[in-house]
Amino acid sequence: HSIGGTTKIGGMHLRAVSTPYPTKNHLQPKRYKAHVMGTQYVYDFPELFRLAIQNSWTNAVRAQPKLADGQPPVGECIDFAELVLDDHDNLAEVSRDPGNNSCGMVGWLIKARTPEYPQGRQFVVVANDITFSIGSFGPKEDHYFFKCTELARKLGIPRIYLSANSGARLGLATELMPHFNVAWNDPEDPEAGFRYLYLSHEDKARFEDTVITEPVVEDGEKRHKIVTVVGAEDGLGVECLRGSGLIAGATSRAYNDIFTCTLVTCRSVGIGAYLVRLGQRAVQIEGQPIILTGAPALNSLLGREVYTSNLQLGGTQIMYRNGVSHLTASDDFAGVSKIVEWMSFVPDRRNNPIPIRPSADHWDRDVVYTPPQKESYDVRWMIGGRPADPEAKPARHDFEPGLFDKDSFVETLGGWARTVVVGRARLGGIPMGVIAVETRTVENVTPADPANPDSIEMVANEAGGVWYPNSAFKTAQAINDFNHGEQLPLMILANWRGFSGGQRDMYNEVLKYGSFIVDALVKFEQPVFIYIPPFGELRGGSWVVVDPTINPTAMEMYADVEARGGVLEPEGIVGIKYRKDKQVETMARLDPVYSDLKKQMAKNGLSKEEAAAIKTQMAEREKLLQPVYNQISVQFADLHDRAGRMKAKGVIREVLDWREARRFFYWRVRRRLNEEYILRRMKNATAAAGKASPAADPAEARAHHLQLLEAWCGIPDFDTNDREVTKWYEENTARVQDKIDALKKEAIAAEMRELVRAGAPEKGADAT
Amino acid sequence: HSIGGTTKIGGMHLRAVSTPYPTKNHLQPKRYKAHVMGTQYVYDFPELFRLAIQNSWTNAVRAQPKLADGQPPVGECIDFAELVLDDHDNLAEVSRDPGNNSCGMVGWLIKARTPEYPQGRQFVVVANDITFSIGSFGPKEDHYFFKCTELARKLGIPRIYLSANSGARLGLATELMPHFNVAWNDPEDPEAGFRYLYLSHEDKARFEDTVITEPVVEDGEKRHKIVTVVGAEDGLGVECLRGSGLIAGATSRAYNDIFTCTLVTCRSVGIGAYLVRLGQRAVQIEGQPIILTGAPALNSLLGREVYTSNLQLGGTQIMYRNGVSHLTASDDFAGVSKIVEWMSFVPDRRNNPIPIRPSADHWDRDVVYTPPQKESYDVRWMIGGRPADPEAKPARHDFEPGLFDKDSFVETLGGWARTVVVGRARLGGIPMGVIAVETRTVENVTPADPANPDSIEMVANEAGGVWYPNSAFKTAQAINDFNHGEQLPLMILANWRGFSGGQRDMYNEVLKYGSFIVDALVKFEQPVFIYIPPFGELRGGSWVVVDPTINPTAMEMYADVEARGGVLEPEGIVGIKYRKDKQVETMARLDPVYSDLKKQMAKNGLSKEEAAAIKTQMAEREKLLQPVYNQISVQFADLHDRAGRMKAKGVIREVLDWREARRFFYWRVRRRLNEEYILRRMKNATAAAGKASPAADPAEARAHHLQLLEAWCGIPDFDTNDREVTKWYEENTARVQDKIDALKKEAIAAEMRELVRAGAPEKGADAT
Repeated sequence: HSIGGTTKIGGMHLRAVSTPYPTKNHLQPKRYKAHVMGTQYVYDFPELFRLAIQNSWTNAVRAQPKLADGQPPVGECIDFAELVLDDHDNLAEVSRDPGNNSCGMVGWLIKARTPEYPQGRQFVVVANDITFSIGSFGPKEDHYFFKCTELARKLGIPRIYLSANSGARLGLATELMPHFNVAWNDPEDPEAGFRYLYLSHEDKARFEDTVITEPVVEDGEKRHKIVTVVGAEDGLGVECLRGSGLIAGATSRAYNDIFTCTLVTCRSVGIGAYLVRLGQRAVQIEGQPIILTGAPALNSLLGREVYTSNLQLGGTQIMYRNGVSHLTASDDFAGVSKIVEWMSFVPDRRNNPIPIRPSADHWDRDVVYTPPQKESYDVRWMIGGRPADPEAKPARHDFEPGLFDKDSFVETLGGWARTVVVGRARLGGIPMGVIAVETRTVENVTPADPANPDSIEMVANEAGGVWYPNSAFKTAQAINDFNHGEQLPLMILANWRGFSGGQRDMYNEVLKYGSFIVDALVKFEQPVFIYIPPFGELRGGSWVVVDPTINPTAMEMYADVEARGGVLEPEGIVGIKYRKDKQVETMARLDPVYSDLKKQMAKNGLSKEEAAAIKTQMAEREKLLQPVYNQISVQFADLHDRAGRMKAKGVIREVLDWREARRFFYWRVRRRLNEEYILRRMKNATAAAGKASPAADPAEARAHHLQLLEAWCGIPDFDTNDREVTKWYEENTARVQDKIDALKKEAIAAEMRELVRAGAPEKGADAT
Repeated sequence: HSIGGTTKIGGMHLRAVSTPYPTKNHLQPKRYKAHVMGTQYVYDFPELFRLAIQNSWTNAVRAQPKLADGQPPVGECIDFAELVLDDHDNLAEVSRDPGNNSCGMVGWLIKARTPEYPQGRQFVVVANDITFSIGSFGPKEDHYFFKCTELARKLGIPRIYLSANSGARLGLATELMPHFNVAWNDPEDPEAGFRYLYLSHEDKARFEDTVITEPVVEDGEKRHKIVTVVGAEDGLGVECLRGSGLIAGATSRAYNDIFTCTLVTCRSVGIGAYLVRLGQRAVQIEGQPIILTGAPALNSLLGREVYTSNLQLGGTQIMYRNGVSHLTASDDFAGVSKIVEWMSFVPDRRNNPIPIRPSADHWDRDVVYTPPQKESYDVRWMIGGRPADPEAKPARHDFEPGLFDKDSFVETLGGWARTVVVGRARLGGIPMGVIAVETRTVENVTPADPANPDSIEMVANEAGGVWYPNSAFKTAQAINDFNHGEQLPLMILANWRGFSGGQRDMYNEVLKYGSFIVDALVKFEQPVFIYIPPFGELRGGSWVVVDPTINPTAMEMYADVEARGGVLEPEGIVGIKYRKDKQVETMARLDPVYSDLKKQMAKNGLSKEEAAAIKTQMAEREKLLQPVYNQISVQFADLHDRAGRMKAKGVIREVLDWREARRFFYWRVRRRLNEEYILRRMKNATAAAGKASPAADPAEARAHHLQLLEAWCGIPDFDTNDREVTKWYEENTARVQDKIDALKKEAIAAEMRELVRAGAPEKGADAT
């Protein structure tokens, strides 16, 4: 124990007692360098995390005072240790002074005590040091980045990447520059050009290992023609690209596996840009570009001054608007805070339960804000509630709560494809992914291409409630983000009239992006709730791509009593199946006047004039009543699109009432989550015992396990009594665990019997 | 045995002897109906397959006469049985007369004897019957389609879908139309509108099950207000959408699992269009559209006559050009033939070895066609050889063979993103996926949008050797197609200068599509060869996304002696690392004149005029020599980009010579394929024994197995002696199998020990 009475090991630990205290000032030049580039010095970032988490505590306690019990003392919400490669090329947690890095990449394993995890959660932060070789990626940086990513994957914890770099490192073998010779065409006239570069015999010996040469004898002089320059330094060219490939592949894998997120805190170039995208989730700081090629290089390629800055190429006006950046932030602290908030939705480790925190917004309340039938509204109000607005007409003096907890909704990808709204919110404290539909028409502005003088800014209007190529892509992206690493359950407030099928959108591959939605849902592993909201509708193709049969174990579909669903809208169906001739038949049946005329017409012995007169009268009557009979036929068709029919046909699970939806979904999602965690344990228990019963259909195994669960708890209406079942699950964890253990033992015993048989087979009978 | 001496069961089997022979004519009306729509009657398709396979035999035997031994008698190359659902809802193979289908979907299990599989291979064909309810998808059709798809997945065999449909079925409860009543606002004046529809008390009883009503009493009359119409018929609305969702999900899964391919033989609407895309591979017949919404419906939505036909929306000029259709064909037979040819590259069952057929083009020959250094050429010549062209200047009288077998290359996705060329070819008979790079500039024409009068046709020039958003997407699509279902090894002739990073392409999400390439390669399970061809180059980002470290077990990289690779092109590096000041230093070192002047300048005691004169001379000399010294510096930089350096840095496996490349890759791919099949069996043998040794790192296990293989065969230079190793693998299959069996026994024994321990744990020690 040290003198201060703490067990913490300080920065001076194990140093000689004569070691002077370092002055902080030696970092100032680097700090200054980083600030000039518009970012923080990399070693200052952990403190930003500390501050951001501190703030999240303050906010959480303000909303829910009882959280204060778990709050760590000010300044102690995080511990962190720098990750350094030891002699065995393993990452070790080391407490060393800032600025001692020997490559342009720095990382930490941070343990943070957050409102969701007061006991602490871990995550890896890996960051470019832009003050080290302008943050370029050389082999050492790539290797370190790879190790940090693999560590995060191994632990199953989030990996945050702070991106500030200049792409892959490049260089020339400067040690050769003062030594190579030139074989001139005419030594007297160097203007006439040269044939090759070579080393003298003496120099050759000196650079034996780093230059590949061919011997040449010219005028009796023994020369070594340079065939290839390898160079003494590691990190001049292709080796940096190889390293970049390594971390590109690792990041692609990591996204499938753990929570990956990037803060673009300074320019991100080349491989830096690809790492941003391969990790998918990205928070971009305003004024910091994501680019592949710098503006000057492009200008020299194009032969004229097209671009004035890198920001033109990859600033937020490009990258937030095309969905590469999920969020933007005005400065590094805001960016770090957003990542901290994002992580609060995510489990601390892969496959752990999602973090449910006590909610100030009780589950047991009505959903007050209800969307109007024919007016436009902001769908975010349905999610998070409608704020009071005394200025509005009519004035609204009270907050009208929505489906999810007040102030819990965080929208992402907000700049891209704005006909779909995606983000994360909490339902009685349970984090969920949310996808909802903008009902208003949105302007989509495609900027003019500076490199093409003929191009102009294009403005396309995108109607609300319709999937376009971009919004379908965004929907699929959001589903993947929720599924990979975040492992959130998902609520889709489905209100789509269909996919846009005009020529432009067909050409722009709407079919591919629509298919992305199906592909993403097929892989989804948490519960998905599709809810057609009040006055919402789901038609044709847009129903198809979210139908629960796509992934029946995960997906459930609901419709509001006031929702509509069908292949076409009623007007469309009437145009095909209840046309004018049939409408006239209905008229003949229901309208006494018309019916009379028709009877008269049918009489025998009418003169030509009489018949003509009746015909005219009939035509007049038809014309007069046609609008109302058209309405009747539309009404008749519309009666086919009601939630009642969906329920009768078994295509939805329940008809819901919006006002009650929060209560319903709160218990439903809580039950499903608990159930899924138990089912996963049951699956592992029976699968861990090997494949003795080879690949019993997983759907069947699941159904069997569910039946077991039903039998264990013995609650009537097991399927629908979500509240009781949830309580039983939560109160009987030990009992359930015992039963799962028994299952496991049984499975192992069965497998042993199987193995005994397989282990002593007749000769030749065990060929694979 | 029947009278004819054959054991085949004919169409009259088990019928009463008095059954009359059917005349064929009863099918003629349906045939006619189908022909009017532009397709064949669905029951005629199996004969098209027969003919196409017959033709493929003819061609194969012509090229390789020794194949004739295996050729089946004319007309007997396929057997097929119709798939019909039996009483237990299982598909049964039935031999019944055409046209007896009871739903609008028909399927067969076809056994085809092909040149690759003279013993026969199976595949499932499932097809819409456009003459049945205009080929719409109702619940029965969906269920049948689902069953056929699942059957193909279960058997692991290809599933071909013949698409000719009208989307999801829709309808109204026609049985109600003559019965419902209308509650008028004013019965005397129907024009004034109505309040609701209702049934009389008597009718209510009649439609008890199919209408949901609320009782209303009005003027003493007991009415039943219609709340929801369910309808007696199954297949009016949402139930068809549910079924569509089912088959959408199943098709998405099938693509990951088996070879899926669609022939768009007639219009494909709505869910039909989505099935085309979800199965990914598609052959579209000219004149048959893939659409989401018909032109008339769009016109009525837009309020004016914008579109004149469905072809405008989804004909080949749209769908082949945007990569939804992989191939086009002029008629059904051509389409079927293309699918048959495509299948010839694909293994008969999932995870079986790929079909290698004797090649007329011997592996042991030079690659003759060599791309020129600075001229434009067609990269297809590198793949398949350059045809003789006596008209060309200079005239070419001989075919110059390329890397792959003559006439074996089949390009797909040729209409889309033409800066990348993808397809399948054979290398000495071994089928491979091929991705190569167009070096010429390509015009990309975006059609004007008929719905937007302001829009105009846009022509963008796309440079060769550069990845654009579309060509990156195409590259990733091709990689996925080769990997999923086709399980082909892959050759990438990598010749990219980088990704296009201008504003337009950054906005068009080039980062996302570039990342798709990495994501696709990460998942690739067969050997991938990246080869930088002669005079090809691979720079920066384009190297990164194909570097073998992305997926080291599958990928290997090679470079031609004449290839280049690096972060930037030499000119770019010189601009950063060998600028004018350094060039002048080199000049001072190498140019005696300049060096003299410099020495003079350095002398003490120069007068102002003298100094100025020398300075002028120096400046003149600098100006004179600057171009040549710039060339020298570029040459110096270029020497860093050679294949020799790549090999020295270990980023490529070998430096290759194009002329010898065929010999090299033939044995390399043959060896790798054999090796992978053995390694897969070894993995299964050790994994089948369960997870006793839980998740030993798969990369480590693989390395261990490779070491075992090396020890078993005992060939020196195991890593590089591909030919000897291949022969050993192929000649010692039984021996290898014995050793694998031994491995398996050992693993089982180890697991039993493990299980005995786990089966009798101390209390509480076995909690999961």
